[in-house]
Amino acid sequence: MAYQALVPVCLLFCFITLTFANNNLNNVLFNGDYEFIDLTYPFDNKTIYWPNAKDFEFTKKVEYFQQDGSWYAANDFAAGEHGGTHIDAPYHFSASGQYVGQIPLDKLIVPLIIADLSSKVNDDPNFVLYKHHLDYILNDNLGKPCLIVFKFGWSKFAMNKKKYLGLSNDGLNFPGISAEVAEWITTSYKNIVGIGVDVASADPGSNRDFPVHKIMSRAGLYIIENVYFERQIPEYGCTAFVMPMKIALGTGAPLRLVAICPKQSPEHF
Amino acid sequence: MAYQALVPVCLLFCFITLTFANNNLNNVLFNGDYEFIDLTYPFDNKTIYWPNAKDFEFTKKVEYFQQDGSWYAANDFAAGEHGGTHIDAPYHFSASGQYVGQIPLDKLIVPLIIADLSSKVNDDPNFVLYKHHLDYILNDNLGKPCLIVFKFGWSKFAMNKKKYLGLSNDGLNFPGISAEVAEWITTSYKNIVGIGVDVASADPGSNRDFPVHKIMSRAGLYIIENVYFERQIPEYGCTAFVMPMKIALGTGAPLRLVAICPKQSPEHF
Repeated sequence: MAYQALVPVCLLFCFITLTFANNNLNNVLFNGDYEFIDLTYPFDNKTIYWPNAKDFEFTKKVEYFQQDGSWYAANDFAAGEHGGTHIDAPYHFSASGQYVGQIPLDKLIVPLIIADLSSKVNDDPNFVLYKHHLDYILNDNLGKPCLIVFKFGWSKFAMNKKKYLGLSNDGLNFPGISAEVAEWITTSYKNIVGIGVDVASADPGSNRDFPVHKIMSRAGLYIIENVYFERQIPEYGCTAFVMPMKIALGTGAPLRLVAICPKQSPEHF
Repeated sequence: MAYQALVPVCLLFCFITLTFANNNLNNVLFNGDYEFIDLTYPFDNKTIYWPNAKDFEFTKKVEYFQQDGSWYAANDFAAGEHGGTHIDAPYHFSASGQYVGQIPLDKLIVPLIIADLSSKVNDDPNFVLYKHHLDYILNDNLGKPCLIVFKFGWSKFAMNKKKYLGLSNDGLNFPGISAEVAEWITTSYKNIVGIGVDVASADPGSNRDFPVHKIMSRAGLYIIENVYFERQIPEYGCTAFVMPMKIALGTGAPLRLVAICPKQSPEHF
Protein backbone atom coordinates (compact mmCIF):
# COMPACT_ATOMS: atom_id res chain seq x y z
CA MET A 1 0.00 0.00 0.00
CA ALA A 2 2.84 2.37 0.92
CA TYR A 3 4.56 1.46 -2.34
CA GLN A 4 1.43 2.26 -4.36
CA ALA A 5 1.19 5.61 -2.64
CA LEU A 6 4.44 6.61 -4.37
CA VAL A 7 2.68 6.80 -7.73
CA PRO A 8 0.78 10.08 -7.19
CA VAL A 9 3.85 11.55 -5.44
CA CYS A 10 5.99 10.64 -8.45
CA LEU A 11 3.48 12.05 -10.91
CA LEU A 12 3.27 15.31 -8.96
CA PHE A 13 7.07 15.56 -8.85
CA CYS A 14 7.30 14.97 -12.63
CA PHE A 15 4.69 17.65 -13.22
CA ILE A 16 6.52 20.20 -11.06
CA THR A 17 9.86 19.39 -12.71
CA LEU A 18 8.47 19.80 -16.21
CA THR A 19 6.70 23.03 -15.28
CA PHE A 20 9.83 24.71 -14.00
CA ALA A 21 12.33 23.15 -16.41
CA ASN A 22 11.81 25.83 -19.03
CA ASN A 23 15.14 26.29 -20.75
CA ASN A 24 14.03 28.87 -23.30
CA LEU A 25 16.84 31.48 -23.41
CA ASN A 26 14.64 34.48 -22.63
CA ASN A 27 13.10 32.67 -19.68
CA VAL A 28 16.51 31.66 -18.30
CA LEU A 29 18.01 35.14 -18.79
CA PHE A 30 15.13 37.09 -17.32
CA ASN A 31 13.85 34.82 -14.56
CA GLY A 32 15.76 36.72 -11.87
CA ASP A 33 18.53 34.14 -11.40
CA TYR A 34 21.09 36.07 -13.47
CA GLU A 35 22.53 39.55 -13.34
CA PHE A 36 24.21 41.67 -16.01
CA ILE A 37 27.58 43.09 -14.95
CA ASP A 38 29.37 45.77 -16.96
CA LEU A 39 33.15 45.24 -17.04
CA THR A 40 33.75 48.35 -19.18
CA TYR A 41 35.27 51.74 -18.35
CA PRO A 42 33.41 54.70 -19.85
CA PHE A 43 35.06 56.65 -22.66
CA ASP A 44 35.59 60.22 -21.45
CA ASN A 45 38.48 62.57 -20.73
CA LYS A 46 39.75 60.26 -17.96
CA THR A 47 39.97 57.13 -20.10
CA ILE A 48 43.45 55.66 -19.84
CA TYR A 49 45.52 55.36 -23.01
CA TRP A 50 49.11 54.26 -23.50
CA PRO A 51 51.46 57.30 -23.21
CA ASN A 52 52.15 57.64 -26.95
CA ALA A 53 48.61 56.77 -28.08
CA LYS A 54 45.86 59.09 -29.25
CA ASP A 55 43.57 59.82 -26.29
CA PHE A 56 39.79 59.75 -26.51
CA GLU A 57 38.75 63.10 -27.99
CA PHE A 58 35.15 64.19 -27.68
CA THR A 59 33.95 67.21 -29.65
CA LYS A 60 30.58 68.82 -29.10
CA LYS A 61 29.31 69.53 -32.59
CA VAL A 62 25.78 70.85 -32.06
CA GLU A 63 23.76 71.41 -28.90
CA TYR A 64 20.74 73.70 -28.83
CA PHE A 65 17.03 74.06 -28.23
CA GLN A 66 15.11 74.10 -31.50
CA GLN A 67 12.31 76.52 -32.40
CA ASP A 68 9.65 74.12 -31.11
CA GLY A 69 11.44 73.91 -27.73
CA SER A 70 12.92 70.48 -28.35
CA TRP A 71 16.58 69.72 -27.75
CA TYR A 72 19.13 68.56 -30.29
CA ALA A 73 22.71 67.50 -29.57
CA ALA A 74 25.36 65.50 -31.42
CA ASN A 75 29.12 64.98 -31.07
CA ASP A 76 32.15 63.71 -32.90
CA PHE A 77 34.83 61.55 -31.33
CA ALA A 78 38.29 60.22 -32.13
CA ALA A 79 40.68 57.79 -30.47
CA GLY A 80 43.43 55.27 -30.84
CA GLU A 81 42.20 51.68 -31.10
CA HIS A 82 44.02 50.54 -27.97
CA GLY A 83 42.78 52.56 -25.01
CA GLY A 84 40.19 52.16 -22.30
CA THR A 85 38.48 48.78 -22.21
CA HIS A 86 39.42 47.41 -25.61
CA ILE A 87 40.18 44.32 -27.64
CA ASP A 88 43.45 43.49 -29.41
CA ALA A 89 42.72 41.51 -32.56
CA PRO A 90 45.29 38.89 -33.60
CA TYR A 91 46.32 41.24 -36.46
CA HIS A 92 47.77 43.66 -33.87
CA PHE A 93 50.87 41.47 -33.56
CA SER A 94 50.43 38.98 -36.43
CA ALA A 95 50.32 39.99 -40.11
CA SER A 96 48.26 36.88 -40.89
CA GLY A 97 45.92 37.30 -37.92
CA GLN A 98 42.26 38.31 -37.91
CA TYR A 99 41.14 41.95 -37.88
CA VAL A 100 38.58 43.00 -35.27
CA GLY A 101 35.82 42.78 -37.87
CA GLN A 102 36.74 39.18 -38.68
CA ILE A 103 36.53 37.69 -35.19
CA PRO A 104 33.47 35.40 -35.30
CA LEU A 105 30.68 35.74 -32.75
CA ASP A 106 31.25 32.23 -31.46
CA LYS A 107 34.57 33.45 -30.07
CA LEU A 108 32.96 36.59 -28.60
CA ILE A 109 30.08 34.97 -26.72
CA VAL A 110 31.66 32.31 -24.54
CA PRO A 111 31.81 30.98 -20.99
CA LEU A 112 33.89 33.26 -18.77
CA ILE A 113 36.47 32.17 -16.22
CA ILE A 114 37.90 34.72 -13.81
CA ALA A 115 41.31 33.91 -12.35
CA ASP A 116 41.31 36.15 -9.29
CA LEU A 117 44.96 36.77 -8.40
CA SER A 118 44.37 39.93 -6.36
CA SER A 119 45.56 38.45 -3.07
CA LYS A 120 48.69 36.99 -4.71
CA VAL A 121 49.48 40.29 -6.45
CA ASN A 122 48.82 42.25 -3.26
CA ASP A 123 49.17 45.60 -5.10
CA ASP A 124 52.73 44.80 -6.24
CA PRO A 125 53.34 46.44 -9.66
CA ASN A 126 56.26 44.05 -10.24
CA PHE A 127 54.08 40.93 -10.01
CA VAL A 128 54.47 38.59 -12.99
CA LEU A 129 52.10 35.67 -13.42
CA TYR A 130 53.76 32.26 -13.74
CA LYS A 131 52.31 28.78 -14.14
CA HIS A 132 52.74 27.88 -10.49
CA HIS A 133 50.28 30.65 -9.55
CA LEU A 134 47.59 28.91 -11.57
CA ASP A 135 47.70 25.37 -10.26
CA TYR A 136 44.25 25.73 -8.81
CA ILE A 137 42.57 26.95 -11.97
CA LEU A 138 41.81 26.07 -15.58
CA ASN A 139 40.29 22.72 -14.69
CA ASP A 140 36.64 23.58 -15.01
CA ASN A 141 36.01 24.58 -18.61
CA LEU A 142 35.44 21.06 -19.91
CA GLY A 143 37.17 21.65 -23.22
CA LYS A 144 34.60 24.12 -24.53
CA PRO A 145 35.58 27.54 -25.91
CA CYS A 146 36.03 30.07 -23.13
CA LEU A 147 37.52 33.41 -22.20
CA ILE A 148 39.80 33.64 -19.18
CA VAL A 149 40.27 36.98 -17.48
CA PHE A 150 43.19 37.45 -15.09
CA LYS A 151 42.25 39.78 -12.27
CA PHE A 152 45.28 41.45 -10.71
CA GLY A 153 43.17 43.76 -8.54
CA TRP A 154 44.24 46.85 -10.48
CA SER A 155 40.85 48.49 -11.22
CA LYS A 156 40.97 50.32 -7.90
CA PHE A 157 43.85 52.45 -9.24
CA ALA A 158 42.07 53.49 -12.45
CA MET A 159 41.19 56.97 -11.23
CA ASN A 160 44.93 57.68 -10.95
CA LYS A 161 46.56 57.21 -14.35
CA LYS A 162 50.10 57.58 -12.99
CA LYS A 163 49.54 54.86 -10.38
CA TYR A 164 47.55 52.60 -12.74
CA LEU A 165 50.27 52.62 -15.41
CA GLY A 166 53.14 52.89 -12.94
CA LEU A 167 54.45 55.89 -14.89
CA SER A 168 58.01 56.91 -14.11
CA ASN A 169 61.11 58.11 -15.94
CA ASP A 170 61.93 54.47 -16.63
CA GLY A 171 58.64 53.78 -18.38
CA LEU A 172 55.68 51.78 -17.14
CA ASN A 173 55.26 49.37 -14.27
CA PHE A 174 52.20 47.21 -13.58
CA PRO A 175 51.50 43.47 -13.19
CA GLY A 176 51.25 41.16 -16.18
CA ILE A 177 51.50 37.68 -17.62
CA SER A 178 54.72 35.75 -18.31
CA ALA A 179 55.57 34.22 -21.69
CA GLU A 180 55.50 30.88 -19.84
CA VAL A 181 51.79 31.24 -19.08
CA ALA A 182 51.03 32.48 -22.60
CA GLU A 183 52.75 29.44 -24.15
CA TRP A 184 50.99 27.15 -21.68
CA ILE A 185 47.55 28.59 -22.57
CA THR A 186 48.05 28.43 -26.32
CA THR A 187 49.55 24.93 -26.34
CA SER A 188 47.75 23.14 -23.50
CA TYR A 189 44.37 24.84 -23.52
CA LYS A 190 43.29 25.01 -27.15
CA ASN A 191 39.76 25.81 -26.02
CA ILE A 192 40.71 29.24 -24.66
CA VAL A 193 39.73 31.73 -27.40
CA GLY A 194 40.93 34.88 -25.67
CA ILE A 195 42.39 36.29 -22.49
CA GLY A 196 41.69 39.44 -20.52
CA VAL A 197 43.46 41.50 -17.88
CA ASP A 198 42.43 44.34 -15.54
CA VAL A 199 45.62 46.27 -16.36
CA ALA A 200 46.69 48.25 -19.44
CA SER A 201 48.50 45.36 -21.15
CA ALA A 202 48.64 41.57 -21.00
CA ASP A 203 52.45 41.89 -20.80
CA PRO A 204 53.91 43.32 -17.60
CA GLY A 205 54.27 47.12 -17.87
CA SER A 206 58.04 46.91 -17.74
CA ASN A 207 58.36 44.38 -20.59
CA ARG A 208 58.84 46.20 -23.89
CA ASP A 209 59.18 43.05 -26.01
CA PHE A 210 55.50 42.12 -25.65
CA PRO A 211 56.01 38.33 -25.72
CA VAL A 212 52.48 37.60 -24.52
CA HIS A 213 51.00 39.72 -27.32
CA LYS A 214 53.15 37.94 -29.88
CA ILE A 215 52.32 34.45 -28.62
CA MET A 216 48.59 35.13 -28.37
CA SER A 217 48.39 36.85 -31.78
CA ARG A 218 50.29 34.04 -33.50
CA ALA A 219 47.94 31.48 -31.94
CA GLY A 220 44.86 33.44 -33.08
CA LEU A 221 43.68 34.47 -29.61
CA TYR A 222 42.40 37.94 -28.85
CA ILE A 223 43.41 39.98 -25.79
CA ILE A 224 41.16 42.23 -23.72
CA GLU A 225 42.86 45.00 -21.75
CA ASN A 226 41.65 47.36 -19.05
CA VAL A 227 38.82 45.10 -17.88
CA TYR A 228 36.96 47.00 -15.19
CA PHE A 229 36.13 45.09 -12.01
CA GLU A 230 33.96 47.51 -10.10
CA ARG A 231 32.82 44.63 -7.86
CA GLN A 232 33.41 40.95 -7.17
CA ILE A 233 32.05 38.48 -9.70
CA PRO A 234 31.96 34.67 -9.58
CA GLU A 235 35.09 32.89 -10.89
CA TYR A 236 32.96 30.26 -12.66
CA GLY A 237 29.48 30.13 -14.16
CA CYS A 238 29.39 33.51 -15.93
CA THR A 239 29.06 34.10 -19.66
CA ALA A 240 31.16 36.76 -21.42
CA PHE A 241 29.73 39.05 -24.10
CA VAL A 242 32.78 40.54 -25.82
CA MET A 243 31.26 43.16 -28.09
CA PRO A 244 33.85 45.34 -29.87
CA MET A 245 33.02 48.25 -32.13
CA LYS A 246 33.07 46.47 -35.50
CA ILE A 247 36.08 48.25 -37.04
CA ALA A 248 36.46 46.19 -40.20
CA LEU A 249 40.26 46.42 -40.46
CA GLY A 250 40.90 47.21 -36.80
CA THR A 251 44.00 45.94 -35.02
CA GLY A 252 41.92 46.69 -31.94
CA ALA A 253 38.72 48.48 -30.97
CA PRO A 254 36.77 49.94 -28.06
CA LEU A 255 34.96 47.09 -26.40
CA ARG A 256 31.72 46.73 -24.50
CA LEU A 257 32.43 43.84 -22.15
CA VAL A 258 29.54 42.41 -20.18
CA ALA A 259 29.34 39.36 -17.94
CA ILE A 260 26.09 37.58 -17.25
CA CYS A 261 26.45 35.77 -13.95
CA PRO A 262 24.32 33.66 -11.65
CA LYS A 263 23.26 35.81 -8.71
CA GLN A 264 25.15 34.86 -5.60
CA SER A 265 24.01 34.98 -2.04
CA PRO A 266 25.73 37.69 0.07
CA GLU A 267 27.91 35.20 1.98
CA HIS A 268 29.91 34.60 -1.17
CA PHE A 269 31.38 38.08 -0.89
CA MET B 1 0.04 -5.00 -9.86
CA ALA B 2 -0.17 -2.91 -13.04
CA TYR B 3 -0.63 0.17 -10.88
CA GLN B 4 2.49 -0.66 -8.86
CA ALA B 5 4.46 -1.10 -12.09
CA LEU B 6 4.00 2.62 -12.73
CA VAL B 7 6.39 3.48 -9.90
CA PRO B 8 9.68 2.54 -11.66
CA VAL B 9 8.36 4.09 -14.91
CA CYS B 10 7.61 7.32 -13.08
CA LEU B 11 10.97 7.34 -11.35
CA LEU B 12 12.78 6.77 -14.65
CA PHE B 13 10.79 9.58 -16.28
CA CYS B 14 11.63 11.92 -13.41
CA PHE B 15 15.29 11.05 -13.72
CA ILE B 16 15.36 11.71 -17.48
CA THR B 17 13.50 14.99 -17.05
CA LEU B 18 15.87 16.22 -14.38
CA THR B 19 18.91 15.16 -16.37
CA PHE B 20 17.93 17.13 -19.46
CA ALA B 21 16.22 20.05 -17.74
CA ASN B 22 19.46 21.91 -17.23
CA ASN B 23 18.63 25.58 -17.41
CA ASN B 24 22.10 26.85 -16.57
CA LEU B 25 22.73 29.80 -18.91
CA ASN B 26 25.94 28.43 -20.44
CA ASN B 27 24.27 25.09 -21.11
CA VAL B 28 21.27 26.73 -22.77
CA LEU B 29 23.40 29.12 -24.87
CA PHE B 30 25.92 26.55 -26.06
CA ASN B 31 23.82 23.39 -26.44
CA GLY B 32 23.41 23.92 -30.19
CA ASP B 33 19.79 25.14 -30.06
CA TYR B 34 20.74 28.81 -30.47
CA GLU B 35 22.69 30.81 -33.00
CA PHE B 36 24.40 34.19 -32.76
CA ILE B 37 23.44 36.63 -35.50
CA ASP B 38 25.32 39.88 -36.09
CA LEU B 39 22.99 42.75 -37.06
CA THR B 40 25.87 45.23 -37.37
CA TYR B 41 27.48 46.88 -40.41
CA PRO B 42 31.27 47.05 -40.27
CA PHE B 43 32.94 50.43 -39.83
CA ASP B 44 35.06 51.13 -42.91
CA ASN B 45 35.19 53.63 -45.77
CA LYS B 46 31.76 52.48 -47.02
CA THR B 47 29.92 53.00 -43.73
CA ILE B 48 26.88 55.20 -44.30
CA TYR B 49 26.69 58.51 -42.45
CA TRP B 50 24.16 61.31 -42.73
CA PRO B 51 25.24 63.79 -45.46
CA ASN B 52 26.44 66.51 -43.05
CA ALA B 53 27.97 64.12 -40.50
CA LYS B 54 31.60 63.25 -39.94
CA ASP B 55 32.32 59.99 -41.80
CA PHE B 56 34.29 57.13 -40.28
CA GLU B 57 37.97 58.03 -40.66
CA PHE B 58 40.57 55.30 -40.26
CA THR B 59 44.23 56.26 -40.04
CA LYS B 60 47.04 53.74 -40.18
CA LYS B 61 49.45 54.87 -37.51
CA VAL B 62 52.09 52.15 -37.42
CA GLU B 63 52.47 48.96 -39.42
CA TYR B 64 55.78 47.15 -39.72
CA PHE B 65 57.78 44.00 -39.11
CA GLN B 66 59.92 44.32 -35.99
CA GLN B 67 63.55 43.27 -35.68
CA ASP B 68 62.59 39.82 -34.40
CA GLY B 69 60.35 39.30 -37.45
CA SER B 70 57.11 39.86 -35.59
CA TRP B 71 54.42 42.20 -36.88
CA TYR B 72 53.08 45.31 -35.18
CA ALA B 73 50.18 47.45 -36.39
CA ALA B 74 47.89 50.03 -34.78
CA ASN B 75 45.45 52.65 -36.06
CA ASP B 76 43.51 55.72 -35.01
CA PHE B 77 39.91 56.38 -35.93
CA ALA B 78 37.39 59.18 -35.79
CA ALA B 79 33.67 59.50 -36.52
CA GLY B 80 30.41 61.21 -35.77
CA GLU B 81 28.30 59.43 -33.15
CA HIS B 82 25.37 58.81 -35.51
CA GLY B 83 26.59 56.72 -38.45
CA GLY B 84 26.65 53.06 -39.36
CA THR B 85 24.85 50.76 -36.96
CA HIS B 86 24.46 53.03 -33.95
CA ILE B 87 22.33 53.93 -30.97
CA ASP B 88 20.63 57.27 -30.31
CA ALA B 89 20.54 57.93 -26.57
CA PRO B 90 17.51 59.81 -25.22
CA TYR B 91 19.83 62.85 -24.71
CA HIS B 92 20.10 63.21 -28.53
CA PHE B 93 16.66 64.89 -28.60
CA SER B 94 15.92 65.48 -24.90
CA ALA B 95 18.05 67.71 -22.64
CA SER B 96 16.94 65.68 -19.60
CA GLY B 97 17.43 62.30 -21.27
CA GLN B 98 20.10 59.68 -20.58
CA TYR B 99 23.52 59.76 -22.24
CA VAL B 100 24.76 56.57 -23.91
CA GLY B 101 26.90 55.79 -20.86
CA GLN B 102 23.87 56.01 -18.57
CA ILE B 103 21.60 53.50 -20.29
CA PRO B 104 21.41 50.54 -17.89
CA LEU B 105 22.23 47.01 -19.03
CA ASP B 106 18.72 45.81 -18.25
CA LYS B 107 17.52 47.96 -21.14
CA LEU B 108 20.30 46.73 -23.42
CA ILE B 109 19.84 42.98 -22.95
CA VAL B 110 16.19 42.30 -23.66
CA PRO B 111 13.84 40.08 -25.66
CA LEU B 112 13.80 41.10 -29.33
CA ILE B 113 10.74 41.40 -31.54
CA ILE B 114 11.19 41.89 -35.28
CA ALA B 115 8.30 43.53 -37.10
CA ASP B 116 9.00 42.43 -40.67
CA LEU B 117 7.30 44.95 -42.94
CA SER B 118 9.40 44.21 -46.04
CA SER B 119 6.49 42.92 -48.12
CA LYS B 120 4.29 45.88 -47.14
CA VAL B 121 7.08 48.36 -47.95
CA ASN B 122 7.85 46.59 -51.21
CA ASP B 123 10.94 48.79 -51.82
CA ASP B 124 8.88 52.02 -51.75
CA PRO B 125 11.05 54.82 -50.27
CA ASN B 126 7.88 56.81 -49.51
CA PHE B 127 6.45 54.14 -47.19
CA VAL B 128 5.46 55.48 -43.77
CA LEU B 129 4.51 53.08 -41.00
CA TYR B 130 1.10 53.66 -39.43
CA LYS B 131 -0.76 51.81 -36.70
CA HIS B 132 -2.96 49.87 -39.11
CA HIS B 133 0.15 48.16 -40.51
CA LEU B 134 0.87 46.71 -37.08
CA ASP B 135 -2.42 45.13 -36.11
CA TYR B 136 -0.85 41.71 -36.24
CA ILE B 137 2.04 42.44 -33.96
CA LEU B 138 2.97 43.60 -30.47
CA ASN B 139 0.84 41.00 -28.76
CA ASP B 140 3.50 38.57 -27.75
CA ASN B 141 5.86 40.32 -25.38
CA LEU B 142 3.83 39.66 -22.25
CA GLY B 143 4.50 43.02 -20.67
CA LYS B 144 8.21 42.40 -20.14
CA PRO B 145 10.89 44.86 -21.34
CA CYS B 146 11.68 44.35 -25.01
CA LEU B 147 13.25 45.91 -28.08
CA ILE B 148 11.21 46.07 -31.27
CA VAL B 149 13.02 46.39 -34.59
CA PHE B 150 11.06 47.48 -37.66
CA LYS B 151 12.40 45.79 -40.76
CA PHE B 152 11.63 47.75 -43.92
CA GLY B 153 13.75 45.49 -46.11
CA TRP B 154 16.33 48.23 -46.73
CA SER B 155 19.60 46.44 -45.91
CA LYS B 156 19.84 45.15 -49.50
CA PHE B 157 20.50 48.74 -50.64
CA ALA B 158 23.33 49.41 -48.19
CA MET B 159 26.11 48.98 -50.75
CA ASN B 160 24.64 51.95 -52.66
CA LYS B 161 24.61 55.00 -50.38
CA LYS B 162 22.61 57.14 -52.84
CA LYS B 163 19.86 54.52 -53.09
CA TYR B 164 19.91 53.64 -49.37
CA LEU B 165 19.48 57.28 -48.31
CA GLY B 166 17.36 58.24 -51.33
CA LEU B 167 19.71 61.15 -51.96
CA SER B 168 18.42 63.79 -54.37
CA ASN B 169 18.42 67.56 -54.72
CA ASP B 170 15.37 67.62 -52.47
CA GLY B 171 17.15 65.84 -49.64
CA LEU B 172 16.64 62.27 -48.41
CA ASN B 173 13.96 59.70 -49.08
CA PHE B 174 13.60 56.34 -47.35
CA PRO B 175 10.89 54.56 -45.31
CA GLY B 176 10.23 55.42 -41.68
CA ILE B 177 7.86 55.49 -38.76
CA SER B 178 4.93 57.89 -38.26
CA ALA B 179 4.45 60.03 -35.16
CA GLU B 180 1.22 58.06 -34.68
CA VAL B 181 3.15 54.81 -34.16
CA ALA B 182 5.72 56.52 -31.93
CA GLU B 183 2.98 57.90 -29.67
CA TRP B 184 1.25 54.53 -29.64
CA ILE B 185 4.43 52.72 -28.59
CA THR B 186 5.35 55.15 -25.83
CA THR B 187 1.83 55.41 -24.40
CA SER B 188 0.38 51.93 -24.91
CA TYR B 189 3.45 49.73 -24.69
CA LYS B 190 5.39 50.95 -21.69
CA ASN B 191 7.42 47.75 -21.76
CA ILE B 192 9.18 48.65 -25.00
CA VAL B 193 12.57 50.09 -23.97
CA GLY B 194 13.85 50.92 -27.46
CA ILE B 195 13.12 50.67 -31.16
CA GLY B 196 15.28 49.86 -34.14
CA VAL B 197 15.08 50.33 -37.90
CA ASP B 198 17.02 48.98 -40.90
CA VAL B 199 17.18 52.46 -42.45
CA ALA B 200 19.26 55.53 -41.60
CA SER B 201 16.66 57.15 -39.33
CA ALA B 202 13.55 56.17 -37.38
CA ASP B 203 11.79 59.13 -39.01
CA PRO B 204 11.06 58.87 -42.74
CA GLY B 205 13.95 60.32 -44.78
CA SER B 206 11.80 63.17 -46.07
CA ASN B 207 10.63 64.32 -42.61
CA ARG B 208 12.96 67.03 -41.31
CA ASP B 209 11.05 67.63 -38.07
CA PHE B 210 12.07 64.28 -36.54
CA PRO B 211 8.85 63.73 -34.56
CA VAL B 212 9.67 60.06 -33.83
CA HIS B 213 13.07 61.03 -32.40
CA LYS B 214 11.44 63.68 -30.22
CA ILE B 215 8.69 61.39 -28.93
CA MET B 216 11.06 58.50 -28.21
CA SER B 217 13.68 60.71 -26.51
CA ARG B 218 11.09 62.40 -24.31
CA ALA B 219 9.75 59.00 -23.25
CA GLY B 220 13.27 57.74 -22.42
CA LEU B 221 13.48 55.17 -25.20
CA TYR B 222 16.60 54.66 -27.28
CA ILE B 223 16.63 54.29 -31.06
CA ILE B 224 18.84 51.97 -33.10
CA GLU B 225 19.48 52.95 -36.72
CA ASN B 226 21.01 51.09 -39.66
CA VAL B 227 20.28 47.64 -38.30
CA TYR B 228 21.79 45.17 -40.76
CA PHE B 229 19.61 42.25 -41.81
CA GLU B 230 21.96 40.12 -43.83
CA ARG B 231 19.50 37.23 -43.54
CA GLN B 232 16.07 36.31 -42.21
CA ILE B 233 15.71 35.99 -38.45
CA PRO B 234 12.72 34.84 -36.39
CA GLU B 235 10.18 37.54 -35.50
CA TYR B 236 9.81 36.15 -31.96
CA GLY B 237 12.00 34.23 -29.54
CA CYS B 238 15.32 36.05 -30.05
CA THR B 239 17.24 38.02 -27.45
CA ALA B 240 18.86 41.37 -28.31
CA PHE B 241 22.34 42.34 -27.10
CA VAL B 242 22.53 46.09 -27.66
CA MET B 243 26.16 46.87 -26.89
CA PRO B 244 27.15 50.47 -27.64
CA MET B 245 30.65 51.84 -27.28
CA LYS B 246 30.39 53.30 -23.76
CA ILE B 247 30.78 57.00 -24.64
CA ALA B 248 30.05 58.51 -21.23
CA LEU B 249 28.37 61.70 -22.47
CA GLY B 250 27.41 60.39 -25.91
CA THR B 251 24.21 61.48 -27.61
CA GLY B 252 24.81 58.34 -29.63
CA ALA B 253 27.52 55.75 -30.26
CA PRO B 254 28.66 53.00 -32.59
CA LEU B 255 26.77 49.88 -31.64
CA ARG B 256 27.47 46.17 -31.76
CA LEU B 257 24.04 44.65 -32.16
CA VAL B 258 23.72 40.90 -31.85
CA ALA B 259 20.63 38.69 -31.77
CA ILE B 260 20.66 35.27 -30.18
CA CYS B 261 17.91 33.23 -31.79
CA PRO B 262 16.55 29.70 -31.61
CA LYS B 263 17.78 27.81 -34.65
CA GLN B 264 14.99 27.29 -37.13
CA SER B 265 14.45 24.40 -39.47
CA PRO B 266 14.96 25.30 -43.16
CA GLU B 267 11.22 25.25 -43.96
CA HIS B 268 10.82 28.45 -41.94
CA PHE B 269 12.66 30.37 -44.61
